[in-house]
This record gives sequence, structure tokens and C-alpha cells, in this order.
Amino acid sequence: MAEQITQQVQVFYDRLMKDYDVNNNHSGIDGERVAKRLTAIAELGMTEEGGCRRISFSQEEKRAKELVKQWMEEDGLAVTVDGAGNVFGRVEGLVAGPAVMSGSHLDSVMHGGHFDGPLGVISALEVASAWKNTDEKPSIPFEVVVFTDEEGARFNGGLLGSQSVVGELNLEEEKRRVDFNGKPFEDVLANVGLTPEGFIEAKRDLSQVKAFVEVHIEQGKQLEKRNQPVGVVTGIAGPTWLKVTFKGVAGHAGNTPMNDRTDALVAASEFVTNVKDFPVQVSDSGVATVGKLEVEPNGVNVIPGEVTLTVDIRDIKEEWKSEITRRVKEYAQTVSEQHGTVVEVEESMNVSPVQVPEKMQKQAGEAVEEALGLDPFYLPSGAGHDAMILGRYVPMAMLFTQSLDGVSHNPKEWSSLNDCVQTIHVLKRFVEKIGEES
Amino acid sequence: MAEQITQQVQVFYDRLMKDYDVNNNHSGIDGERVAKRLTAIAELGMTEEGGCRRISFSQEEKRAKELVKQWMEEDGLAVTVDGAGNVFGRVEGLVAGPAVMSGSHLDSVMHGGHFDGPLGVISALEVASAWKNTDEKPSIPFEVVVFTDEEGARFNGGLLGSQSVVGELNLEEEKRRVDFNGKPFEDVLANVGLTPEGFIEAKRDLSQVKAFVEVHIEQGKQLEKRNQPVGVVTGIAGPTWLKVTFKGVAGHAGNTPMNDRTDALVAASEFVTNVKDFPVQVSDSGVATVGKLEVEPNGVNVIPGEVTLTVDIRDIKEEWKSEITRRVKEYAQTVSEQHGTVVEVEESMNVSPVQVPEKMQKQAGEAVEEALGLDPFYLPSGAGHDAMILGRYVPMAMLFTQSLDGVSHNPKEWSSLNDCVQTIHVLKRFVEKIGEES
Repeated sequence: MAEQITQQVQVFYDRLMKDYDVNNNHSGIDGERVAKRLTAIAELGMTEEGGCRRISFSQEEKRAKELVKQWMEEDGLAVTVDGAGNVFGRVEGLVAGPAVMSGSHLDSVMHGGHFDGPLGVISALEVASAWKNTDEKPSIPFEVVVFTDEEGARFNGGLLGSQSVVGELNLEEEKRRVDFNGKPFEDVLANVGLTPEGFIEAKRDLSQVKAFVEVHIEQGKQLEKRNQPVGVVTGIAGPTWLKVTFKGVAGHAGNTPMNDRTDALVAASEFVTNVKDFPVQVSDSGVATVGKLEVEPNGVNVIPGEVTLTVDIRDIKEEWKSEITRRVKEYAQTVSEQHGTVVEVEESMNVSPVQVPEKMQKQAGEAVEEALGLDPFYLPSGAGHDAMILGRYVPMAMLFTQSLDGVSHNPKEWSSLNDCVQTIHVLKRFVEKIGEES
Repeated sequence: MAEQITQQVQVFYDRLMKDYDVNNNHSGIDGERVAKRLTAIAELGMTEEGGCRRISFSQEEKRAKELVKQWMEEDGLAVTVDGAGNVFGRVEGLVAGPAVMSGSHLDSVMHGGHFDGPLGVISALEVASAWKNTDEKPSIPFEVVVFTDEEGARFNGGLLGSQSVVGELNLEEEKRRVDFNGKPFEDVLANVGLTPEGFIEAKRDLSQVKAFVEVHIEQGKQLEKRNQPVGVVTGIAGPTWLKVTFKGVAGHAGNTPMNDRTDALVAASEFVTNVKDFPVQVSDSGVATVGKLEVEPNGVNVIPGEVTLTVDIRDIKEEWKSEITRRVKEYAQTVSEQHGTVVEVEESMNVSPVQVPEKMQKQAGEAVEEALGLDPFYLPSGAGHDAMILGRYVPMAMLFTQSLDGVSHNPKEWSSLNDCVQTIHVLKRFVEKIGEES
């Protein structure tokens, strides 16, 4: 087994390097170093199938943070670790003042890949390493950050590290959680040397953060379709989750004539069929997805008595998202009335979208042009990230790196080293531009 | 616990007798005896919640059969038990020759009620008891039968006793089964003194069966809606089961634009929405139900990649059922093409419908008029019964007794004693009419 994992690590590294174009090595950025670092992190959590299991609060996540701390120290960054286990590596700037912060997370989902999270950390670190290579210093301070537990694979929560930094964490709620082994929050924390109180103490003075920039894989196919290595994110579309329950009347599939049925699944199906048409009525960036649907009693010969389904609605502007949500809710009532069912709609989550400030979008776009000579491509982020949490308090931006087949949260997750390194060039230029404007 | 069950038994009896109209006691039929017998059977399997758990091949089913044998002997019927554990009680007729057979089963589903099965057995026995009370003899022989394991709650099969009688049982297949405790078929049988070979030896000479008539609760609401105590069944609508799988492309609900999706649930939903309209295009008695639907991966924020659903199609004429099935299959392809999904349709079951011969429907209708002075109401049976098995070899008929709210396979299952006794009057007249024609 150990041998198989060693082999997978080698396969991962070889695949990164195979078609790497060394012309991408310039301005102090070194693709081979990026590949080695991604591989060293990948090793800590590598599964036999070549995927990643580096759950939050595991020994693997802890060791990955230790490794990043070691690289930070080697590259002359000043390392601090806060009470939430977030790791910061700071480079002082030519002038003092608020820092540009960049980074992501090192924890993965249960059956994840090696880019979601690590690419953002290694990219930010590579910017600092590049400056060291070329004997440069940034205009203003720069901080590389590793956030604890973004994915939430252990407690079904997530974004714990970034929420702690902005002082948003609801500790009482977290304390009530138990992990997938039934182990309480505090015990799990203790295992990696953390305490609940530490998460509260982790709150930073955000006036000392000028901006936060996160590099992340796209987790979609838009860049791949347009053959773009990197995209500029316009905003993070916080989701609204609706839980919709249609209640009909269960009955024997053989003994109830068609005209005497109140079939919850027939009503729910008409709803699902039409929900997809609402976003486009409101905006270009909106999406609505029925991802989860459960039938009761779910027997081959029983007319469905109850169907519970979820609608995930996202858009990058609150007013657009609200309007889509309003239409979907109204339609649930209409369909239900037509079918004689009873419907209940419950809003189980409503995360405000966070827009990337126009100015930062513009700077990021210019960085794409200047670093790569490409026209920038702008796209929304449908998924939540640590940047969404930071973005509520400080100007936030994100760069997306092309994902193979749009696959993420899966061992098949992949981004080419060329695309990763080109993204790092854009990140470096972008961070420099933010510093220069000061 | 024992006390609670004793109490439930009393509640059951009292509820039967509460609004019983003694004017229904005539022609030798005695409502109080019917109530006592139903209650004595109910006691053997009564649950604390007032339902019934008398699983096939249990000690409860065995004791219920013993009790019926005892009543048969008390009423002068000649009792035999075959190798499948089926119990027969025979009354000789004024002339010899093939017998009219009537009965049902005594086993229940896991959380069943007290009428599905027992009512058919007690009704047939009451006809024999009535003749004894009035010192009559039937024109031709009459047999009361208790079939083993109709419900199939133990091995997921069912109809074992009736299949054995007609020689249709696939013993090799049965032998491979294990029960819900993982206990092999032969061991379970041994516990109640049966052997697999016995089930083969149980095959009867069906030339000696003139007709089979089964009384059963409706398990639907048609009689209740029309305020009819009893209905004449036109045929048993054997089901065709289709397993339909739509395969799309899973993806992140946030990061995949609406116009770039191949959502398996959207395709499946359009299919479900329209499947309900096919039966009425073909016949009045046809039904089609999507009862079971499962989504993969079934995550709130994941576009469904695969949906598997079942379609249960029934009609009382094979040609009608085939035509509905053909249209549903064709439509699955059409919808799938429109949505760019891949669809697979698999026929997992196809039981031929069995029609009640016109002549027997007519006789049963006349029996309703003569016994109750009511216009007969005709309806199909959507569920399978032992009569469906017998009906492939001998003329078969069924009488349905009104079910409260159409509920069955549930502790709430209920039929009023008045409706039960009125059904027995019809059964008696019907059986006599079959004998008189000889």
C-alpha cells in the first residue's frame, strides 16, 4: 500500500512536469518549484486511487501546514500561527501599512483532488519566493495565508479559519458539532493542539488588510471552453438554499385510478422541469439547481405521498438572486395548487453574494494583459471560498485557473502546470499593482 | 406488553361489533361468528400499535392455520394439508365432481393490518358454516383454502402456496433465497415442519377445480367513494415494471452556467410529468406510476448526474398494457434526446394480467343483486393475489370489500363488519350459482 502511494506521488509529479513549457519560468517564478511543492502537499493525503484525503483537523492537514511553514521560513517570510491554526507568512514591503493577503486552504473533501486549496496557497507563496529569487521587495507588506478547515468535511460546516479571522465564527454553534466519528468539536481540536477559545482569539485587525486575493481552480468548464489559462472573478455567488416539500396522498399504484391521484412526485417533477427557466429571465449569471430529491415512501408500487427537494439558487448580485428566489417560491405555490398538493418552502441557507470591486476587477484584467498578453476573461464564482468571507470586510478578488473537464472535489481534479504558473504570473502582477497604487 | 396486546384485541373486536347491523344475520351467516374468527386470527400477530405482524413461515402463521383447521373440523369440513402447508377444508356437494374453491392467505406484511388475507379465508369458511347452520349442502363440492406465504414478507417472493398448487413454483430459485435474518429457505421451512420437496408435491390436479373465488379488501377507495359494500372484480392487472435510468453530467451547481448543463433530473422530471398521461390514451383501466426515484449524487449543490426511476404499468388486458408500455418506453427515448442525456430502459418484471371470465363477472353481478338488492359495481384489481395465480389455470373471480380510506399493508387497514358480512352473502350466492349451473 505504501508503495502504491509512493507510486501515485511520482505519477502526479510526472504528469505536472510532462508538458511543462519552461518559457513560463521568468520573473523569479519557477514551475519546477511549484510542481515540487504541489507534489509534497499531495503526498500528505494521497490515496491509493491517486486522490486526496486531507480532512480538516487531521494529522495530514497539520503536517501540510508544517511543510508550508518550513517553506515560508526558508524563503524568509515571518511566520505566525493564530489560535485557529491559520498560518501566516509575512514579507514586509518597501513601505509599512496594511498588507495584501493571499492564500487559500490545505484541507480537502473526503474524496478530493490535489488542487482545490493547495494551488491558492502555493501560488501566493510562489509570489513571495519569486521576489526573493529576483531580490525584490513588494511595495507594501504581503501575507501568504493558509486557512484552517475551508471544506468542512469533518463537521459539515467549513470556512472556520477565515470566519475566525474576520470574527464571524459562531463558537457556540461549532461546539455543538460532532465529527463523522461522533467525536465532539473540542476533542477533535485538542488532537491537533487547538482550543475553541483560540478560534475567537484569531480575530484580526482588518484595517491592516488592504485586500485579499485568492487563486483557485475554476471547478467549471468556462475557461477550458475558451482555452484561457486564467479567469478574473467578478463576484462570488452566495447560495440561497430552498427546501421544498410537496405533500400528496400515497396509495397503491395498482388500485388508484389515474384521475383519483394526488401524486407528490408528479407535482414535484413539473416544478423541477420548469425551475431551470427562471435564472435566465433575471440575469446572465444566475443559476438554479435541484440537486437533491427524495421520495416517500419510494416504493415501486406506491404512489409517492411526499417529495422533498432542494433548490440551490445563486447569483453575484443580491437583488438578482432575490428575484430568482421570489419567482421560484411563487412557482412552487402555483404548481402545487394545480396538482392539489400541499407545498412547504423553507429557506435553509442564504449567503449574500460578494462582488469583486470594479477597481480590483480592472486591475486583475490589466494583470492578465500585462503578464500574459491575453484579453482577460471575466466569470462569476458559483462556489463559496474563504475569499467570500474576507470579502465582507476587505476588498476581495479571485483568479480562477482552468480545470480539466470542470471536475473538482474528485480524485480526477486537474489543472496543468502551465495554467497554474501562468495564473501565478497574473497573481504576482496583480499584487504588485495593488501595492503600486498605494 | 402482553396486557397491551390483550387490550388491542378487545379494541379490535369491539370496533367490529360497535355498529354491526344484526339484520345482516340471515341465511345461516352470523356476523358475530365472523367477528370472533377475525379477532382470533388478529390476536395471533397483534402488535402493540394494533397492527398485524404474522410473517410467512412464522409460528404465528402456523398457529393461525391450526386455528382455521380446528374451525373447519368443528364445522364438519374434511381437512387436508399439502406439502406447501396450504390448508384445505372440503364440503362434499350433492353431486360429485370438480369443486369450487375459495380462500386466501393468513400471512401478513411486516407492518400489516387484520383484513388483507384473513377476510378471504374467514369469508369462505363462513359460507360452509352457513350451510351447516341451515342444514344445507352445496350442489357441488366446495373447498375452503388457506394459501401459504402470499405476501412474501420473509423472502421477497410471495404467492408460494398458490404457485405450488398450480405447479408453477421455481424451487431452485426459491432455494437460493435467504430471509431477512439471513436464514436459508430450507432452514426457515424446517422450523415450521415443511420441506422444499413438499412444495413440489403440493401440485393439484386442477381438472378437479371448477373455479376459484377470492374475497379480498379493495386496497383502494373506489367502493368507499360509491358507498358500495362490495365490488365485482373484472380482472387482475399484472404489473410491468420498467427501470429507467437517465444519465447526464454531474457538475457544480454554482460553476456551471444554465446553458451548459446536461441535468439528468431535469430530463427525468419532464418524463415523470408526462408519463401519467399515457394510460388514459389507451384504456380506462390502465395506470402508470413512477413510485421510486433516486438521484445521484443527490447533493444540494451538485447537478444531478444520474437518475434512476421505476415505472409501474398495469392494465387488465395484455394488449392495453403492452401499448401503454410501448408508449412510455418510446417517450423515454424522446425526452432523453431532447435533453442530451443517455437513457436506459430495463423491464424488470412483466406479469400477465388475468381477466375474470365474462360469465363469472355476470354471475357475481347477479349475486350482488340477489343477495343485497344492489346494482353491482365492477372494478379492476391493481394488485396481485393468489387468484391471479389460480386464474392462469382455472376460471377465477374476486369480490372486493370496501376498505376504509383505501389503506392496506398498514395497521390502519379497516373494513366494517357490515361490509364484510354483506360480501360473504354475495360470495355464498355466487358460489351457489356456480354450483347450480353444473
